[in-house]
This record gives sequence, C-alpha cells and structure tokens, in this order.
Amino acid sequence: MSVEKIILGIDPGTTIMGFGIIKVVNKKMEFIQLNELLLQKYSDHYVKLKLIFERTIELIDTYHPDEIAIEAPFFGKNVQSMLKLGRAQGVAMAAGLSREIPITEYAPKKIKMAITGNGNASKEQVAKMLQSLLKLKSLPKNLDATDGLAAAVCHFYNAGKVTGSKSYTGWSAFVKQNPKKIR
Amino acid sequence: MSVEKIILGIDPGTTIMGFGIIKVVNKKMEFIQLNELLLQKYSDHYVKLKLIFERTIELIDTYHPDEIAIEAPFFGKNVQSMLKLGRAQGVAMAAGLSREIPITEYAPKKIKMAITGNGNASKEQVAKMLQSLLKLKSLPKNLDATDGLAAAVCHFYNAGKVTGSKSYTGWSAFVKQNPKKIR
Repeated sequence: MSVEKIILGIDPGTTIMGFGIIKVVNKKMEFIQLNELLLQKYSDHYVKLKLIFERTIELIDTYHPDEIAIEAPFFGKNVQSMLKLGRAQGVAMAAGLSREIPITEYAPKKIKMAITGNGNASKEQVAKMLQSLLKLKSLPKNLDATDGLAAAVCHFYNAGKVTGSKSYTGWSAFVKQNPKKIR
Repeated sequence: MSVEKIILGIDPGTTIMGFGIIKVVNKKMEFIQLNELLLQKYSDHYVKLKLIFERTIELIDTYHPDEIAIEAPFFGKNVQSMLKLGRAQGVAMAAGLSREIPITEYAPKKIKMAITGNGNASKEQVAKMLQSLLKLKSLPKNLDATDGLAAAVCHFYNAGKVTGSKSYTGWSAFVKQNPKKIR
C-alpha cells in the first residue's frame, strides 16, 4: 500500500486556474485535491501571473508531486489571447521547472478522449466521469475547476504507455503530427 | 556618485534571449553588461524555457536589478508562434515576479522610438545609437543580442515620465489604446 506517484494537474488560464491532485496507489488512482484559483477579479495582468506562479509553487511544496500534467490548448481565437495564454502557461511551467518536476502537456481533446473515450465530450460528461472514477462526493459548481484534475487523470492513463504516433506530449510532437494545422 | 538604480532589460525569445544591464548614476546611464543566451541548439521546448528561467534568476541574483524591462511584441505571425513567445515571456516574468521585481514591458516600436526617435529604425541604427549612448567599445556580431539592452535603455528614458496616452506599459493599456488592432 505504498504511494507510487503523486500527479498535479493544472489548467492555467488568465481568468481561472483549475488544479487537481491524485495519488497512484497499487496502480490505482486516489483523489487528493480539486480546486480553482479565480483570477477574473484582478485587472492587472502581472498580478494574475504572479498568483498563478505562487499557487503552483505552493501546491508543489505542499503535495510534492512527482509529475505535472498541464492542459494546453494549441489553438485560440487570436494572437493576443494566445500570447496571454502562453504567459499563463509559462509561469505555471516555470514553477514546475524551478522544482525540477517533469511536465507533460496534453491538448484538451486528448484529455477528453482519455477520460470519456470521446474527444468531443462535454464538460459535464468529463466531470461526471471524473466523479465516478475518483469517487468524488460532489462536483464543484464551476466545472472549469475540474480541467486541472482531468489533466492529472489523463496523465495517469498515459503514463507507462508506449507513446505512439498519436501521443501529443509536446509542442514539437504536435507540430510534426499536424503539419496541416500550422497556420 | 551613488548608484540610483539598476535596470535589467530582456528580450525573451525561443531561439535567442538577449539581455542587458545598465546602472543609473547621477541621473545618467552607465553600461554594465550585454549578452545573449542562444537557444536554437536545444530542440526540447522545456529545456529552452528552463534555461530562460534559470538565466533570468541568475542575472537577478548576480546584479540585483531594481527594475526589469521586457521587449514584448504584441503581434506575431500566427497563434502558435505567439503561444511559444508567451511561454518564453512567461518564464522570464516568473523569474522577476518570484524576486518581487517590478516588470515593465515595451513594444518593439516604442523601444526603437525611445532610442533613435524613429519607431521604424533598423536593428543597425538602434545598435549604433546604443553604442554611442553607452560608450560601448564594440557591438556583438549578432545584433539580436542588443534588444535586451535596448529595452533597459528605453525603460531609463521612460522612468519618471508622466505616462500619457501613448505609453504602452502593459497589456491593458495597449488594448485600450489600440482597439482597432485587436483581431
């Protein structure tokens, strides 16, 4: 009954950062934590980035995750929103990098697919499946909060698998596998 | 003859990070350092981000800057390049935020304007002007390295000024002042 691994999942955005933590015991997942950091009330971009960085550091220093999984959309409405999203991801990644914790990123579709078997599943379907898989007593009002937890569960399913041609575990891999999507 | 302020200027990119440091003595600039971190030889995106973060932390801990100026383009070719650029900026910003150092960002045109009086000046013109202003004995082969130093000098000129409607010192300000540029 030893803890084999602790996984921190993060969905860093500029209006909300969802995060979840699971542990792996005897090759099975167990729920530890699910929460959100609300950022919409702060108008200063740097305050948001600072809060994302600090909360991620705090989570790492409290739960000592062995691995970090990040939900990372590769597409957005426009270059401005992607720059802002990139900065939010960057500060969260810097927290992991500064603590020498391996980071794996997953596209939203990949996460939905890993959890529900359907890459186009709704937020409600993903949340219900997470509730069932992790025996959660209740779900948060704001389902965006579950996106970080979903990334952690996706990472659990992907760990140990031989990464084939459909694994998007990084930027370069994504670009290689989706040459036509690069505009 | 006391040092009033030390300014670290950074131009974080995913192929090169240029950085420069100046000190302000008796309201005048003095050159301290100009260098570049070459990243093109690393194919792993996380390695690049880690190196940007670590080098920025190292510069802060070595030179103890009071303020950080970042060259931050608001536009790019496509959403992918902006996401990558945002991540590079994000990790550099995280380094500054983690050390509680105020960060100001400047658009490339603003920097060129501050140094040469022409927002469309060439890289050579900016470099020559920097050489003259800071009495540099020589210029680096790769002029991209001077972009960080240019940001620091731009910040020197802008510090203390009443920020009027043309000051792009942040994302929100830029968006407010350039509503038509937001796609």
